[in-house]
Amino acid sequence: MDAAVSSTAARTERVTRFRIADGRPESAERDDLIAIEDPLEIRIDGQSWSITMRTPGDDLDLVAGFLVGEGVITEPGHLASIGHVAGAIYGNTVDAVLAPGATPPADAAARHSVTTSACGICGTESIDAIEKQARWDLGVDETVVPATVIADLPDRLRAAQTLFEETGGVHAAGLFTAAGDALCVREDVGRHNAVDKVVGWALQRGLLPLRGTVLQVSGRASFELVQKARLAGVPVLAAVGAPSSLSRDLAQSSGLTLVGFSRGSGFSVYTHPERIGG
Amino acid sequence: MDAAVSSTAARTERVTRFRIADGRPESAERDDLIAIEDPLEIRIDGQSWSITMRTPGDDLDLVAGFLVGEGVITEPGHLASIGHVAGAIYGNTVDAVLAPGATPPADAAARHSVTTSACGICGTESIDAIEKQARWDLGVDETVVPATVIADLPDRLRAAQTLFEETGGVHAAGLFTAAGDALCVREDVGRHNAVDKVVGWALQRGLLPLRGTVLQVSGRASFELVQKARLAGVPVLAAVGAPSSLSRDLAQSSGLTLVGFSRGSGFSVYTHPERIGG
Repeated sequence: MDAAVSSTAARTERVTRFRIADGRPESAERDDLIAIEDPLEIRIDGQSWSITMRTPGDDLDLVAGFLVGEGVITEPGHLASIGHVAGAIYGNTVDAVLAPGATPPADAAARHSVTTSACGICGTESIDAIEKQARWDLGVDETVVPATVIADLPDRLRAAQTLFEETGGVHAAGLFTAAGDALCVREDVGRHNAVDKVVGWALQRGLLPLRGTVLQVSGRASFELVQKARLAGVPVLAAVGAPSSLSRDLAQSSGLTLVGFSRGSGFSVYTHPERIGG
Repeated sequence: MDAAVSSTAARTERVTRFRIADGRPESAERDDLIAIEDPLEIRIDGQSWSITMRTPGDDLDLVAGFLVGEGVITEPGHLASIGHVAGAIYGNTVDAVLAPGATPPADAAARHSVTTSACGICGTESIDAIEKQARWDLGVDETVVPATVIADLPDRLRAAQTLFEETGGVHAAGLFTAAGDALCVREDVGRHNAVDKVVGWALQRGLLPLRGTVLQVSGRASFELVQKARLAGVPVLAAVGAPSSLSRDLAQSSGLTLVGFSRGSGFSVYTHPERIGG
């Protein structure tokens, strides 16, 4: 697989801290490793579009995956070029130049229409907006993943998390085959960034839609994460934490199998259980 | 204190799910409560400004707190009015009308300047932008919080979390006195929303800057959460999870005491340990 350490960018920083136990300092000031969080400016066709706080490394995958999750691109050919901006001295600015076939963000935003609705926004409209952006039908993906594989994925993800091991606190996303083999694992201070890095990795290799795969995430299953999985064509999203009402509704309507509370040897299946095998 | 149940808005939804244990279905389809996640459109002076996915309830506090965290307002008088938009049939649209003394978002955004820098953005600029927005000096707050109180706060927060108890998965933020008494606890699918709701609650009561208080959060201490605490004048931010490099740097430069990995009876102090008492 493409391991969690995939970049030479520094991802941790050494700091000092006091540790207190039972109301008293445990020792003198000590060293501690913490994960780096740094801003990344995302430009599209040279125009500033968004700033995200991320752990450095795999920046181009992050931006590519972000664009997939926004409904802008679905294949490598939709990017004329992508790279760090020359002259941007901190390495924190990436410009993605779109090619014909991409859906420029203005169009993508217009499809959301939710912001201009006179009667206000609602969850149903948010779901409709995602479905309008989606270019693949998840319903045709007849992948079946053994229940024992699903139960094993949180441990496999954790075992691949080098940054968590060092810092005790970052999120991760891992893309696995239905047999449980890891294809790509990424870590980041932001759980959405970790998913974007995985999706961008897949996009750049022409692997979208990600039929037959499972995306395992370390946190909760929010609407945003289901959106990213759905637009990347992932049929099964498994989370260590809880789903929300809207993430469950989006998964249900889009044909995505949503697994939550995957801990120990048990997990809960909220939608489309037909993809979970005995 | 102002308890976690502070609103009549439905915050949970009953769904069905299959539970799998040891590779086999544990039982037939069963009911489960999940937290509601629904979009909220934030308007300023009638103009759409942002959409956040939140758990319904305390929407006005959420918007007020969000505006504090963006450097737009610091006192109740900065809001000419705030309320759900009449005619928006889903109750998911809030309009905040600014009064003289507020810093309109265009001005606030311009202060960030980071998006227009020719040489790219960096963490130092992000910190400088927050410091330019801040109207209070945290350095003058000589609050001392006993270590035993800090160690106790995660349990006190958890005990006040009615929604977590029901759903097993939402974030929380709690504002406490230096003696450990809860002033306000809020829960939400988004950890930033939970903090915004607490800060908005305080703003509407004219309690800013929040001198002498501790803000305890259920997740990690990201840059965004330190930003929100700093702009609300909170001197001590304690997190169950890890800090990041940028959250630590912002806390250090702004005079905020940052506590991380607060679990069991122990915790780590990353900045300004002078506020932690023996």
